[in-house]
Parts: sequence; C-alpha cells; structure tokens
Amino acid sequence: MVTVDINCDLEEAYGYYRLREEEEILKRVTSVNIPCGFHAGNPHIICRMVEAALAHQVKVGAHPGFPDMQGFGYRSMNLSLREVYEIMLYQVSALEGITRAYGGDLHHVKLHGALYNEAAERPELAEVIIRAILEVKEDIILYALSGSSLVHIGLEYGLQVAEEVFADRIYLPNGRLAPRELEGSVLHRKEDQLQQASSLILDQRVRTADGNYIELAADTLCIHRENLETIAFLEDLQHWASENGVKIEPIQPR
Amino acid sequence: MVTVDINCDLEEAYGYYRLREEEEILKRVTSVNIPCGFHAGNPHIICRMVEAALAHQVKVGAHPGFPDMQGFGYRSMNLSLREVYEIMLYQVSALEGITRAYGGDLHHVKLHGALYNEAAERPELAEVIIRAILEVKEDIILYALSGSSLVHIGLEYGLQVAEEVFADRIYLPNGRLAPRELEGSVLHRKEDQLQQASSLILDQRVRTADGNYIELAADTLCIHRENLETIAFLEDLQHWASENGVKIEPIQPR
Amino acid sequence: MVTVDINCDLEEAYGYYRLREEEEILKRVTSVNIPCGFHAGNPHIICRMVEAALAHQVKVGAHPGFPDMQGFGYRSMNLSLREVYEIMLYQVSALEGITRAYGGDLHHVKLHGALYNEAAERPELAEVIIRAILEVKEDIILYALSGSSLVHIGLEYGLQVAEEVFADRIYLPNGRLAPRELEGSVLHRKEDQLQQASSLILDQRVRTADGNYIELAADTLCIHRENLETIAFLEDLQHWASENGVKIEPIQPR
Amino acid sequence: MVTVDINCDLEEAYGYYRLREEEEILKRVTSVNIPCGFHAGNPHIICRMVEAALAHQVKVGAHPGFPDMQGFGYRSMNLSLREVYEIMLYQVSALEGITRAYGGDLHHVKLHGALYNEAAERPELAEVIIRAILEVKEDIILYALSGSSLVHIGLEYGLQVAEEVFADRIYLPNGRLAPRELEGSVLHRKEDQLQQASSLILDQRVRTADGNYIELAADTLCIHRENLETIAFLEDLQHWASENGVKIEPIQPR
Repeated sequence: MVTVDINCDLEEAYGYYRLREEEEILKRVTSVNIPCGFHAGNPHIICRMVEAALAHQVKVGAHPGFPDMQGFGYRSMNLSLREVYEIMLYQVSALEGITRAYGGDLHHVKLHGALYNEAAERPELAEVIIRAILEVKEDIILYALSGSSLVHIGLEYGLQVAEEVFADRIYLPNGRLAPRELEGSVLHRKEDQLQQASSLILDQRVRTADGNYIELAADTLCIHRENLETIAFLEDLQHWASENGVKIEPIQPR
Repeated sequence: MVTVDINCDLEEAYGYYRLREEEEILKRVTSVNIPCGFHAGNPHIICRMVEAALAHQVKVGAHPGFPDMQGFGYRSMNLSLREVYEIMLYQVSALEGITRAYGGDLHHVKLHGALYNEAAERPELAEVIIRAILEVKEDIILYALSGSSLVHIGLEYGLQVAEEVFADRIYLPNGRLAPRELEGSVLHRKEDQLQQASSLILDQRVRTADGNYIELAADTLCIHRENLETIAFLEDLQHWASENGVKIEPIQPR
Repeated sequence: MVTVDINCDLEEAYGYYRLREEEEILKRVTSVNIPCGFHAGNPHIICRMVEAALAHQVKVGAHPGFPDMQGFGYRSMNLSLREVYEIMLYQVSALEGITRAYGGDLHHVKLHGALYNEAAERPELAEVIIRAILEVKEDIILYALSGSSLVHIGLEYGLQVAEEVFADRIYLPNGRLAPRELEGSVLHRKEDQLQQASSLILDQRVRTADGNYIELAADTLCIHRENLETIAFLEDLQHWASENGVKIEPIQPR
Repeated sequence: MVTVDINCDLEEAYGYYRLREEEEILKRVTSVNIPCGFHAGNPHIICRMVEAALAHQVKVGAHPGFPDMQGFGYRSMNLSLREVYEIMLYQVSALEGITRAYGGDLHHVKLHGALYNEAAERPELAEVIIRAILEVKEDIILYALSGSSLVHIGLEYGLQVAEEVFADRIYLPNGRLAPRELEGSVLHRKEDQLQQASSLILDQRVRTADGNYIELAADTLCIHRENLETIAFLEDLQHWASENGVKIEPIQPR
C-alpha cells in the first residue's frame, strides 16, 4: 500500500500571540514544522504550537533557519560552516527539549527558506547541518528536497531521511524547484496541484517545466499555506487518497 | 573537610566574537554560568564558552534570563507565569543540547539578573521555574540565593540545590543582598572580600549591614567580574583555601 | 460642526512581509499608528505602511512601544526614566525621517500597549516621553487617553494633544479603561460599539461600568482591529456620521 | 596646509551599558561612527555615545550596517536593493533625530562591515544607499573607501564625500583592502602603521601588497581599535602631525 506524510510549516511570525487557522490544519496533516525563534517564533508561540500538535497526534518537527527575523529566513546569509553548525545545535536543542517537556518526542528536522535551499546545493553545508542534528538526537528524521544531495549525504551519515515533494511548485528538469520569483513557477489551481500530488505519490514522478517527466521519491508532501486554499486542498487530498488506496500517515522512525 | 565551588558568570554580550580573559578565569573556577541568548549570548558565543569550559574541566551551567538584550536582563519584566515557564524551557533546552553536543553534561542552572532576584522572592515564580528545569533535565543542580525561598521550593520538588553566596556584596539582616544601587552595597577592597568569603565558607555565616551575623549555607561562591580584580582575587582565594584546609571543587551531582 | 478623527494601529508583527487588509482599512480611516521596530515592525514593514498611508492621504503617526518583540509590547518593563527617554528618541526619530523620505510629514505620536497605559498613570514617565517627542519634532500631535494626566502634561509642555476614545472598551468610573483581561471589558456587538462611539463623539460622554455617565473629550476614535468586524464597523460609522452631521477628518496641526 | 580627519568606530556591542576607553579615544579623534542598533548598539548605548562625542566636540556620524547582531554586521546578507534602501532610511533617521535631540548635527555617514565592503564594489547598491542618505539629510558627508566607486557615485549624486584610508591594513594593487582573513593583511607594528599613515596623508599614496605605490586621496584616517594600541598610536600620530605641519581636524561641511 502506498503511504505518504503530509507536512505543513506553522510559520506564525514573531511577537503576536495567536494561532489563526492552525487548529483546522492540524486535523488534516500528519506532521508539522515549527520555527525555532531565529526567523520566526518565540518561546510562547513555539510552546503553543508544540502543545497543539501533540494534542492532535501530529508529529513535531524542528524548522530551523537563518538568524534573520526581518527577512523571515528567506534571504541568504554568508555564515561560516562553524556558525551554521552552531545555529543548528542551538535551534534543534531548543525544540528537542521543549517537545520532551510537553510529553512528546522530536520527530524530524526540516530546514527553512534560504537554509533549506542552500543545504540542498552545497554538500559541505549539508555535512555540518547533519552532524549538528545527529549530535542533538540520533533517532530523528531529516526532511530533505527529494533527490537533492542533502538526501544522499544524510543517508551516508546514517540519518533517516524523508524525501519531500511539493504539489504547488513547478519542477525544473534537474529536479530542483523553479524559483518562486519566476513567472509561472507556482501552480495556483487546486486541480493542477492535486494532479501533481497524485503523480508524485502514486507514480513517484513529476512533469517538469520542459514537459518531460523525471522520477522523484515522495515520502512527504509539503503544504504551502500561502499558495493553497489550504483546508479545501487538504480535504480533496484526503478524498483522493481514500479513493486511490493511498494511506496518509506520518513517517515511522526506524 | 570543607569544600566549596567557585562559580562565575561568563557574561559576554551579544554580537562580538571574543572571549577576553575567559581563559584565565576558567583555570581558577570550578563552574561557570553561560547565558542562553536572551539577555546575552548567541549560538557562536555560547558554543565557544561551552567548548572552553569543558576543555578546562569546568562544570557548565545554563544562565537563563529575561528576553531583554537591551537591558542585559537586569530589568524586571511583567511576564505571566506561563511565559516564564516557556522562556525557561527554551533556554535550558538550548544549553542542554549544546553541552551534550560538545561531549559534556549540563551540570546546573543559575538564573540571571532580575529573574534571579524575583525567583528568590516570589514562590509562584520559583515553582514554574523549577518545573521547567525538571522537565528538561531531572539530574541537574539549581544554584539559588542562599536561604531564599527558591532554595526551599527547589528541595520540595526534589531538585538538588546549591546555596550561593557572594564575597563582594553587603547582606541585609534578612539575608537578602543590599541593592547594587545603594551606596556602600559593594565591597571593593580585596581583603574585605576575602574576609567575607572566609566567614561564609568556614563559618557559614556573614556579617550584615547592621553589624550582626546571620547564618547562611555556602555551597558555591559567585565571582562578580565587575567588582573584583578577578584573577588576583581568585589567586588569593586559592592560597587562602590551601592554608585553611578548604577544598575548592565543583558540587557533585547526587 | 462636530468632527472626529478615526485612527487605527497598523500592528503587523515582525518578520513577514505582507499587509493583509490594510488597503481596505486605509480607505476608511483618517490616521494610522505605525510601529517603530521595537514591539513590532521592521524597516521593510514600516516603509510599506508609510508609503501606503501616504498614498491614501491618511495621516502617519509613530507608534512607539517597549523593546519587547516577544510580548508585542503588552508587558510592563521596568525601564529607568532615562531609558524611556532614549527609546522614545530612537523610535520617533526613525519614523520621522522615514516619513519625510517618502514625501510626508510625521503627524502624531501614539504610545503602544504597556507604555500607553503607564504614561497615562505616571506623570514622571509622561514628562520624559513628552520631552523626547518635542526634541525630535515640535509641531506634532500627541494622541493620549482622554482625560488622563498625559493629556494635561502634554498641554503644559506646549504640545498639541488629541484626546483618544474607544468604541469597544468598557470605561471605569474614573475614566480609565477596564482591563482587557476582565470579563465583560470588551464590547463585542457592533451596535453597542456604535452606540458608545455616538455617545462619545456627539455628547462627549460615556456610560461607565457602574451605569453612570462621565464626560470625556473625543478628538480621535481608535479602531481596535481584533475586537471589531473592522470594515463593517467602519462602514456603519461612516453612514452614522453622514446622518448625524459628523465630519470624519484628521486632526489639523496648529 | 595638509589636514586630515581621524575617525573611529565606537563599536560597543549590544546590551551591556558601558563605554570602556571611549573617553580617552574621544580626546584624540575628530570624528566618530556610532552604530545604529542593527549590528551593534541600542538606544541607551547610542545616546551615551552621541552625548559623549558632542561633549568632546567630536563630529558624530551614523554607522549603519546589516541587521545581523549575531554576526556584528561582518557577514554578507542577500538583501534586495529595496530592503537596503529601507534599512538605510531607518538607521540614518534614528541617528539624525537623536543627534539633534542632544543639541548636535549629524555630520556624516559611514557604512559598517559587509555593507561597507559591498557598497564599494556594487554601483547599484551604492546608488540606493546614497539616495536613502540624501532623503534623510542633504547636507551630510559620506565617508567612503578611498578610490572606490562609492566615492564617484556619491559625488555624481551631489553628496559631499570624504575618502577614507587605513593605517593598519595592507592595500591590494587595485586599491582595495586585502581581506582581513589573509595572512599578513594587517599591519601590527605601530611604526609600520605610522609610516603608512604618513605616506597616505602627506603623499596621498600607499605601498601595496606587490611593493608598488598607488595614489589614494586621504581625507579621513580610520582607527581600528582591535589592531592598534589605540591610545599610544593616536598620541604618536598627534606628535607626528605637529612635527610635519599636518593639521588634524574634522572635515568641514560645504
């Protein structure tokens, strides 16, 4: 039976104490990525998110990013490898301890924004990131862009890796995502998103920008809240899954 | 045999990457308190401090404070008990994971600045702080103002507590420290500091502002770097200890 | 003819680059209060807000608060008077220069959150705040809680003051707002809000928690976005104003 | 008569309230660069620095940098041109208003760290920076790396520019500074520093890394506190100046 995890970033920014539609999303996904206070989040927001996720039996992941609250972690920063190692240790440690304190277990790590993109491209960066994660927790899952070198390096280091795909983003022939700024790089129609999700989950392949298909593993599907009528898409996805014999469930730790 | 721990705050502020005289201090103390990024410190500074302390076989403690970088954690902030619980979870978790990553074990927690003072006075605050610490790590030592209610509440909750005293601060008859702002509240002469340390460590008592003596347990002596010729004082203290049969050594976890 | 200003806090938090329903609000208010980067806002958000307000001919005000991004400026902080003076200088200067750079003129200052409340109660705090504002810009208007000592001290210092009232908050017999945490301190029904606005604007009086009326000047009415169906309320307010011969317009600088 | 300005960054980091040897430096320089709260500084520190500089009749400059407190502004960040424009407006406005509030007049702007280096190389960045400065204050002086395109673009925009040189850094044949990380890129001996200062100020030329000389204008000499025995160097420089008929004085605004 085909299974897939549905993950979502809980990207509430700094400062204001509210979880908007989080409750509705938590009922329909199987894992969430919680910011760690560097590009978004603070102790109060993080604790509320961890508590809510655990109450819904949704897996909790750390979502570390660059120390750039003004830019929400979307901007590249020229940190040394040592500094990247250190910001990873700090952020994953904070989430790991907090999740334990609320009776849970930190399930995975997914990088955010510019850090996510750079780690998929730069092996030396991927290495320090993976080493930092392993120092904090060995039995943890790394969510990484499907097919990227981050996946391969993670596996080499003995880390459990879940390959991540996107329903709403256009893929390039080399398997990378077309940059968000590019005209047409985002699929806005729900039917197109569902079709891409279906192709990825059932056939482990996706049609790229040049019309050809490439193969891509799809362990976990990421929900981008800004590009989707999130709740409606999640409901359609559940319907599609039940009709196609796909089981939506979290990645099981080894 | 009388034993005492000598602790020191490594209070390097945010932003600038340097450890000034830390090396010289680390050779002469038995435990340090490392800021966690809220009133001072950032991942780079914290990791450097943890690494240096472990290299000198000095015990590593977390030094959490209010989220007030501008005021260095010295200013009172009106947080809810829940918010205090959350900032404690976050900060202690970060230090706990980082210390493990560098091959060490988080030895103790010592509150900083306004949080230190308020926790010594407000039992309901002490409680949430202690509960947060215990959620992150059970086998840990709390450094608390000698004789304060934080000591008693910590013990009630089953936490190991080390009572902390000061060589350079005047005590009030009720066992509290005279406020720093008060004229004459700080002992500036090294001989006076040594004499107060000696009285506290050997006799477990101190002469207060009104000239009488009160009893105070002295498990750990705090070195305030701003009020002391630190290195010279530490050398004199070592000399005094060896002459008086006092062993300077870290608090042993139970 | 009765005139009144309608002001609204543009409280977008830190980090994320979007103005949600700001456009719709800007069409229906006459002045806005823009956070200055301490409890919310950053250069990008501030510049977008200033630009949008000026494009809609809405008056731009600085909305300074405590340096507490985690608590959104709602928490009291124990700053010295000198520190309050300094954070006021910094925040008002930033907004003053930015507003000029976009071709506008900083119209007013309205304090935020805990700073707003404390300045209304503590005359010595009110004084340093007013002196800081005057040092940065002399021809500026201070929005202050109607009837508070901040109003009187502002007038003594020669500052132009606009007395501010609220449609959605219950008043105490002494003219203060009932604390938000108190059961029943917020009016949730639009009709009740409109009735209170009407009483304040037309009769310069309000019914307090004990059922009696007190007199209150009403130069500017604040729209709290979290307690109102904002757009609907603003439309009803405009309708009510045109039917009652009330002119909604910004406060004119002297 | 040859004249030269001596400037110094007052780089006290965030959070801790103390000016260490600032007093001694202020007696011996003619202008200072004050951080604006993004890579270092906060309202309290900034106000203390402005006040102290004005008390010593030293010219006050704004020293804006990237929003990177953790990295002290030394790390490149991938901001859009619009975002750079906005962080410049914010930081220069803050310093401009604060300097006025203390009875002074903002004299110049000098970029910090990675922003300084990038503005010297990227004309499109230089342009938005210059436009932002001019929007806040027209009669202001830009300190820029001698010979860089920032100098030329500043002049094109009608800004007064002071060309800045360094006594303690090795120059490359193209007039750029050898990167700090490079072995031998810093002159550590006071005599070598004095000789380079002398060559720059008297002859407007400097010996580069390949042993040849290039011409460089020297309106202002920057004192790097970390590479110099600052006070001793400044005293020797004053002695050298008086012996060589060089007048140390601030740049006069046009």
